[in-house]
Amino acid sequence: MNSSPIAFYFDFSSPYSYIASEWIEALAARHGRTVAWHAMLLGASFQVTDIRTPVSYPLKREYTLRDFERSARFAGVPLKVPEIFPIATQNAARVFWWLHDTDGADRAVAWARHALRALFARGVDLSDAAALRALCAEFGLAAAQAEAAWNDPQRKARLKAVNDAAIAVGVFGAPFFVIDGEPFWGNDRRPQIERWLEQGPF
Amino acid sequence: MNSSPIAFYFDFSSPYSYIASEWIEALAARHGRTVAWHAMLLGASFQVTDIRTPVSYPLKREYTLRDFERSARFAGVPLKVPEIFPIATQNAARVFWWLHDTDGADRAVAWARHALRALFARGVDLSDAAALRALCAEFGLAAAQAEAAWNDPQRKARLKAVNDAAIAVGVFGAPFFVIDGEPFWGNDRRPQIERWLEQGPF
Repeated sequence: MNSSPIAFYFDFSSPYSYIASEWIEALAARHGRTVAWHAMLLGASFQVTDIRTPVSYPLKREYTLRDFERSARFAGVPLKVPEIFPIATQNAARVFWWLHDTDGADRAVAWARHALRALFARGVDLSDAAALRALCAEFGLAAAQAEAAWNDPQRKARLKAVNDAAIAVGVFGAPFFVIDGEPFWGNDRRPQIERWLEQGPF
Repeated sequence: MNSSPIAFYFDFSSPYSYIASEWIEALAARHGRTVAWHAMLLGASFQVTDIRTPVSYPLKREYTLRDFERSARFAGVPLKVPEIFPIATQNAARVFWWLHDTDGADRAVAWARHALRALFARGVDLSDAAALRALCAEFGLAAAQAEAAWNDPQRKARLKAVNDAAIAVGVFGAPFFVIDGEPFWGNDRRPQIERWLEQGPF
């Protein structure tokens, strides 16, 4: 059985990333795989590719806002599109990599799930420094230390390097998965990912 | 049982529309529904919304070309992305509405399936007048009559009216489905469409 890890690229501001974050671990585990989570900033990919968020287009905006919540219901995941959307989430991503590099991947993943749920199930504004400090404290971090981390030039450089590496791999949207070298973009590629994990290339 | 028809908007140049065209009728029939096919030009929606084809963006282009064929294999549909892609398909769409308005919807749908398969399974260039004439003849039409139809200002106006109506309904991409007033965009919304047909709103 192939046990290569699944690379999972996500942006804290992306509702489809949040939905996927709620099913990818269980799906991977059923197939003897682990998941390597990569918090990234879609904005970096968007700049290189000239892609814009789907909610920036007439007609597509209304559909997408509706589809976020319908797709969440379809997956059995609680989601309410926040009043301010999308928001800047670089600080939450820097906290992810800070935890990753100091406490290990498991702690970083736990933070990702906590922060994604806070934003999309409870409407916590991750772009607001006070709200993010409070969320860090709720998660068991020293808020001042977390804030120092997200303001640390070294942590900023770390996230930039992750973004650059993601772009080099071809990541232009989120969620984005790479499994055995095969790219899958979008929460809606779940059925194809399931087939790939079951039977390999198709 | 709700038997309202499913509105199915497609563009002859869209690989995902082609894939969906191969499963929508059987799925609808299993749930006692009929399908109202609407040949349209995505370009008209794109102009209004400032949306561009996914193959116009770096990174996304390479992924999408790969995903077209993988998504077709996933659905069990033969597809090879044509060498020239995308192509202009307004003439094929005008033939669709000409048949629709003169011979009825069934004949128009048969043409749609024939032309979509020709383009995506056999590489027939629908934008080439000679190739389109030959395809019409193969389908059992008088080629000269078909060509007169696609050059007829009245047929052009008919397609434009269809495009305008599609935009008014919120269609910004293809395939696009409207079921009981609920919009579904993309071949990859098939699982949600299946659930909707099984149990209604979710």
